[in-house]
Amino acid sequence: MSCKPKINSDRLRALLDGINRFGAGGPGEGYNRPGFSGAGGPGEGYNRPGFSGADMAVRDWFAGEMEKDGLAVTRDGANSVFGRCGDADAPSVMVGSHLDTVVDGGAFDGSLGVAVALECVRAMKEAGIQPAVPVEVAATSEEEGRFGGMLGSQAMAGLVTPEWLANATDADGVLLADAMRAQGLDPEAVPGAARPKGSVRAFLELHIEQGPVLEREGIAIGLPEGATGIVNLQVTLKGTANHSGTTPMDMRADAFAGLAEIATQIPGMIESAPSDIARITIGKVELLPNHPHTVPGESVFSVIIRDASEAVMRGLQRLFYRATAAVAAKHGLTHEIEEKSFIPPVAFDAGLVDLLSETAEGLGLPAKRMISGAGHDAQTMMTLCPSAMIFVPSRNGISHAPEEYSEWSDIEKGAELMLAALLRLTA
Amino acid sequence: MSCKPKINSDRLRALLDGINRFGAGGPGEGYNRPGFSGAGGPGEGYNRPGFSGADMAVRDWFAGEMEKDGLAVTRDGANSVFGRCGDADAPSVMVGSHLDTVVDGGAFDGSLGVAVALECVRAMKEAGIQPAVPVEVAATSEEEGRFGGMLGSQAMAGLVTPEWLANATDADGVLLADAMRAQGLDPEAVPGAARPKGSVRAFLELHIEQGPVLEREGIAIGLPEGATGIVNLQVTLKGTANHSGTTPMDMRADAFAGLAEIATQIPGMIESAPSDIARITIGKVELLPNHPHTVPGESVFSVIIRDASEAVMRGLQRLFYRATAAVAAKHGLTHEIEEKSFIPPVAFDAGLVDLLSETAEGLGLPAKRMISGAGHDAQTMMTLCPSAMIFVPSRNGISHAPEEYSEWSDIEKGAELMLAALLRLTA
Repeated sequence: MSCKPKINSDRLRALLDGINRFGAGGPGEGYNRPGFSGAGGPGEGYNRPGFSGADMAVRDWFAGEMEKDGLAVTRDGANSVFGRCGDADAPSVMVGSHLDTVVDGGAFDGSLGVAVALECVRAMKEAGIQPAVPVEVAATSEEEGRFGGMLGSQAMAGLVTPEWLANATDADGVLLADAMRAQGLDPEAVPGAARPKGSVRAFLELHIEQGPVLEREGIAIGLPEGATGIVNLQVTLKGTANHSGTTPMDMRADAFAGLAEIATQIPGMIESAPSDIARITIGKVELLPNHPHTVPGESVFSVIIRDASEAVMRGLQRLFYRATAAVAAKHGLTHEIEEKSFIPPVAFDAGLVDLLSETAEGLGLPAKRMISGAGHDAQTMMTLCPSAMIFVPSRNGISHAPEEYSEWSDIEKGAELMLAALLRLTA
Repeated sequence: MSCKPKINSDRLRALLDGINRFGAGGPGEGYNRPGFSGAGGPGEGYNRPGFSGADMAVRDWFAGEMEKDGLAVTRDGANSVFGRCGDADAPSVMVGSHLDTVVDGGAFDGSLGVAVALECVRAMKEAGIQPAVPVEVAATSEEEGRFGGMLGSQAMAGLVTPEWLANATDADGVLLADAMRAQGLDPEAVPGAARPKGSVRAFLELHIEQGPVLEREGIAIGLPEGATGIVNLQVTLKGTANHSGTTPMDMRADAFAGLAEIATQIPGMIESAPSDIARITIGKVELLPNHPHTVPGESVFSVIIRDASEAVMRGLQRLFYRATAAVAAKHGLTHEIEEKSFIPPVAFDAGLVDLLSETAEGLGLPAKRMISGAGHDAQTMMTLCPSAMIFVPSRNGISHAPEEYSEWSDIEKGAELMLAALLRLTA
């Protein structure tokens, strides 16, 4: 006998709180375990960087919770944890997110999606529903890119190369392989985490928006149609470091003055782009010698260009190159632009997005189709299987910080939508 | 019997080379002595930071040279070294500069003025001239401000306070007092270095220009009428650190975009100033969190405003404050401006500058009256006695670097002028 399954909000909150007991409030016990590299040292916030002690411990605990719920728990070679409900061999619908955090991160990024996934299964079980298609709750590993990738989902999608595995390091120069070994894990087991094509029918991930759009528009649910691509540039301007007192203004080759002039042209570039979501960000700047009394001889800065269209991204990139060359010439600087990486935009599975949209409509929940500006496991998973996401609003758009927060009334709506969609996909 | 004294260029070069054997070519023996704090580690160039082993050793050697020349050598409580020629008690004309260098500095900054001073006395002695007014060759200590001041000249001028002495530290946090003690010196002896008013009739300093003006104009001699004042500001802009992908351009409070817009207004401020030597420099910039994928939430930067007129400086400061407030408001940033220090402009002694100018004219040497953009012992000495300077050109305007260089043909002209002026002042 089954009744209509329903999200239990208190149970969901307790589960999320349980996850966030690990790595909470600064340096917990886990931080003394070998293998943790606290870049800059953890302070406030939630600290479960990939392969830290707290990240290892939360996975043990979460696996235990799923076992108590009667799920078949496994852990793959990348240290992602799964709890399966249903046939052991049939292709599954996977639902989840990641349990790791950035240093001093928030309580919702990743962990909310994992908690919602398990709550959906709990609600189904409570209602006596045995899904015809197996459901797998997934807690992926190292999504936050301590080692520069999204290890868990990339491993599942078969995207991890031996070269990358051997060479990936964190910001402190700690090798991924060493960090894994320090936790008793075997880096050579990572490639074995690849799932065979066809073994996962769909991947669904609920996540906080990490931006201000849903909050501004007062809509509880976002349905990303895709994720923006990223052009990652490093620009070096070289002039002449000179004494700020003895060098007349008209005889300077000031590498910071050039950077400033380039930066002020960004709004004009954005204005000219045939897109309303294009973004250009200068987030990191290093000057040399970076001394108050010396005209900067060199500036090195990052430029991140994002849009959902590769053509728009490349168009902005051309505009940026042209502006940089012109400003450098005007200031007597040399310039060099390195394209450090290019990640193309990803479109989520249109059928799945439509299904989520129709399901939301059926529940009477307004939902906004949008583009994700952040990277997520779901976009990596598109290589393996149809994938889609549900966003819930972030207060003030803040993420990757202790202040990260989402209203429970919004979370409940997102969770109800996830549950309803899962029921449709697994019936 | 006396003949016309003449600068011996070979002897001068040998003396300068002798000085620069100390601390040359990276970490020499002196760097292993206690008390040396090699901030960043010495690499190329000349390394005699104040109270380093090399700085101590060069003073011993230079004192020995002056003793060989028959000068009465003394060392004061600040570790400045003097060689006196003439009456022990009568007020002297002092001539010299400093022997210490910045880390990885050049071979001419300071040391050239010390070498020229001793060469002038050697030339006078060689010519059989016994000056009616005593001449003191001075090799001042710690002019480069490892501990934030110009210790040697400030001590002579009686400007060193016990509070400053007790608290001054270098960039590594080493206390001045500890650095002195580590070299067997007594910091409590510094105030005793103060010279009584009237005991020094004049101070003359030959120095490299450290700027490009004389070279550009093809003139071997500069006669500074004064030194620019310095307003040292630290500006903090605070916005909101946000994800570069999820935060729309129109919802950002980007602390770097604000800084860039302020920086591009500097040329307009300079244009509007009633001065052709006003300078505004942003030399140091720190962003938070300084991460490529994060909209900068905070920028902290230095602003150095210089001019020879306090009114011009204060006018530029007001313009800068106004621009900062307007840009901050436009970008949704808060702003805070701290005036970290204000050094008023100094005028050198007009009579001495005129004497140098007339003497140059008499020697057929074109000389350019100018303003010093750098700080020098001579401006501190103005508190004690009439002071003035002779500049010689710097190749490409470069200083505080191993590439620092001045042509010997120019140096000879400057040294001849110094000798002739000394003869007039001490006859």
